[in-house]
Amino acid sequence: MSSTESLRSTPPTGDVPATFSPDQRTVDWADGAVELIDQTALPAVERLLRLETVEDVVDAIQRLAVRGAPAIGVAGGLGVALAVRTLPEPSAAIRALRDARPTAVNLARAVDRVAAVVPDGADAVLAEALAIRDEEIASSDSMAAYGVELISELCAAQPRLLTHCNTGGLATVTGGTALGVVFALHRAGLLGGVVASETRPLLQGARLTTWELGRAGVPFRLAVDGAGAYLMARGEVDAVIIGADRICANGDVVNKIGSYAHALGAARAGIPFVVVAPESTVDPATRTGAEVEIEDRGGAEVSGFGVAAANPAFDVTPFDLVTAVVTDRRVVRFAAGQTWDDVPLGPLRSFS
Amino acid sequence: MSSTESLRSTPPTGDVPATFSPDQRTVDWADGAVELIDQTALPAVERLLRLETVEDVVDAIQRLAVRGAPAIGVAGGLGVALAVRTLPEPSAAIRALRDARPTAVNLARAVDRVAAVVPDGADAVLAEALAIRDEEIASSDSMAAYGVELISELCAAQPRLLTHCNTGGLATVTGGTALGVVFALHRAGLLGGVVASETRPLLQGARLTTWELGRAGVPFRLAVDGAGAYLMARGEVDAVIIGADRICANGDVVNKIGSYAHALGAARAGIPFVVVAPESTVDPATRTGAEVEIEDRGGAEVSGFGVAAANPAFDVTPFDLVTAVVTDRRVVRFAAGQTWDDVPLGPLRSFS
Repeated sequence: MSSTESLRSTPPTGDVPATFSPDQRTVDWADGAVELIDQTALPAVERLLRLETVEDVVDAIQRLAVRGAPAIGVAGGLGVALAVRTLPEPSAAIRALRDARPTAVNLARAVDRVAAVVPDGADAVLAEALAIRDEEIASSDSMAAYGVELISELCAAQPRLLTHCNTGGLATVTGGTALGVVFALHRAGLLGGVVASETRPLLQGARLTTWELGRAGVPFRLAVDGAGAYLMARGEVDAVIIGADRICANGDVVNKIGSYAHALGAARAGIPFVVVAPESTVDPATRTGAEVEIEDRGGAEVSGFGVAAANPAFDVTPFDLVTAVVTDRRVVRFAAGQTWDDVPLGPLRSFS
Repeated sequence: MSSTESLRSTPPTGDVPATFSPDQRTVDWADGAVELIDQTALPAVERLLRLETVEDVVDAIQRLAVRGAPAIGVAGGLGVALAVRTLPEPSAAIRALRDARPTAVNLARAVDRVAAVVPDGADAVLAEALAIRDEEIASSDSMAAYGVELISELCAAQPRLLTHCNTGGLATVTGGTALGVVFALHRAGLLGGVVASETRPLLQGARLTTWELGRAGVPFRLAVDGAGAYLMARGEVDAVIIGADRICANGDVVNKIGSYAHALGAARAGIPFVVVAPESTVDPATRTGAEVEIEDRGGAEVSGFGVAAANPAFDVTPFDLVTAVVTDRRVVRFAAGQTWDDVPLGPLRSFS
């Protein structure tokens, strides 16, 4: 069953309880509206949001009903299609979409790309938005192919992997980045199990990754972030596999806070630390992680007790701790001395 | 104002709201009962529990109203004094106290020591329990003296320290272990500030350490556990200072889960990693951390979502990552190659 069929089986308006199949598109276009899985309701409630106005899409992006850079980009692109269909003068709405989350580069990129074809008419706009959706799906599939091959090369049979934050279909459209590789390994019978670290302060690992792993039937255990390095030291993890928000020219990886501590744990335990992210995450204009401004999201997320906090949302893992970066087009082994220039772009591949 | 005076100002029975002075004893004997700060109510409510029966003391220990190995030991010893005064045949109650938390070695040790003087009468029993209390206070004071000297030697002026879990007066009687050194540095005008890591899953750092730091007027920021290593890498921490539940013969340190990841962060950042714990924490019978059975406290603490979890309550920091262990009698520099045998016990010292 395609996800479109699944989405079409829901009532035409309103938010509805739903049961999602593991390979369902988490954001899509259906019957003239944007439909997406409400990530704020998970894991307690599986609810499909049907967004019939641009305001609804902006709101969903801002309150993190949809999150994950590729998924936000797709939602933004589909939002432009919605704007063109529902508004006589869509440019203000398109600007609002572009600015819904200023730091998510994928959002601005997707909105700009779709907005560029507005002169060609509503059908062309929708086609461009759907093309972005399809490219994200193909990108995930290709990362799975490259990633399964690499993990199988680096690890003994049935590796047990630790992952952080959420990098599955919820963050993309289907599959995922790091978690997409995990799902592919599982489907191929090549996975020993997963440790999901909970990912304080917003608990994307505890809420979203465990939900995705559970619906895919992947055996997993949840752990506090501080336990990651120790579980590696104790021999319970064979490799760490995470996503990235940005990868610098020198291979430094910017990702969810807590990733760097896991990288230190992997290095000390002598196990691979693998980063999976699309080529669009590579930022050749930023030389090193030291040049990246790290957003501090304030104390409210960390504590209900009203005290001052240091709350960097991301951290930087130095390239020498990164065994390999897997993209949808290549594998670059930074810890072994490779650079981007050493590995030309390869073909998009298919795992499924 | 002594803590006994403060306690005496409360009504003779029942649990009362209270405002605690920074140097107040967190567990004490007053007017024929055990009184202690209810740690389950902090930081929202400052409440003094007045425990007039042994059952009350056992219950307080079991539900973590009092926690921290030294504090539990004092509560247990005072509980024996209560048993002798309130029960014609106290031996069953003394056994219940001893077994209230089977893994806390300080509890059994304190209960046994006080119970040994039961034949000498109620006054002798109380005197022995109060002696344990006073020894814990003196031990904290001595650790502060050794610790302030070491930190001042290892760090530049006004160091910013990261600490984990709760190791202050709540875990001892006054002062603390690692946090006692922090307070002493602050009182001496030698402290730049503190990062308190929240200490998932039970949030002792977020709930208890921030409360202690706040009432002592120490400038601090709270951070998620996963941010510790990154804050070190970013140059915002000059040293890590933590307590210990057990220190092995080779210097391996068993402490709250998350400590090891902080140690890896400190090593990579090139900053000191200092452990502060009384000599009673040293376990020469255990050769290395690999011999220590680490309690797994199950999934309920980690997740409200009903999923499987890996929840080790403690981890092991290998001795080579431990710049120094500060006890109440000496400083041993394991990372530099020292062993226990290289440093004879010194005198108890006084900081205050």
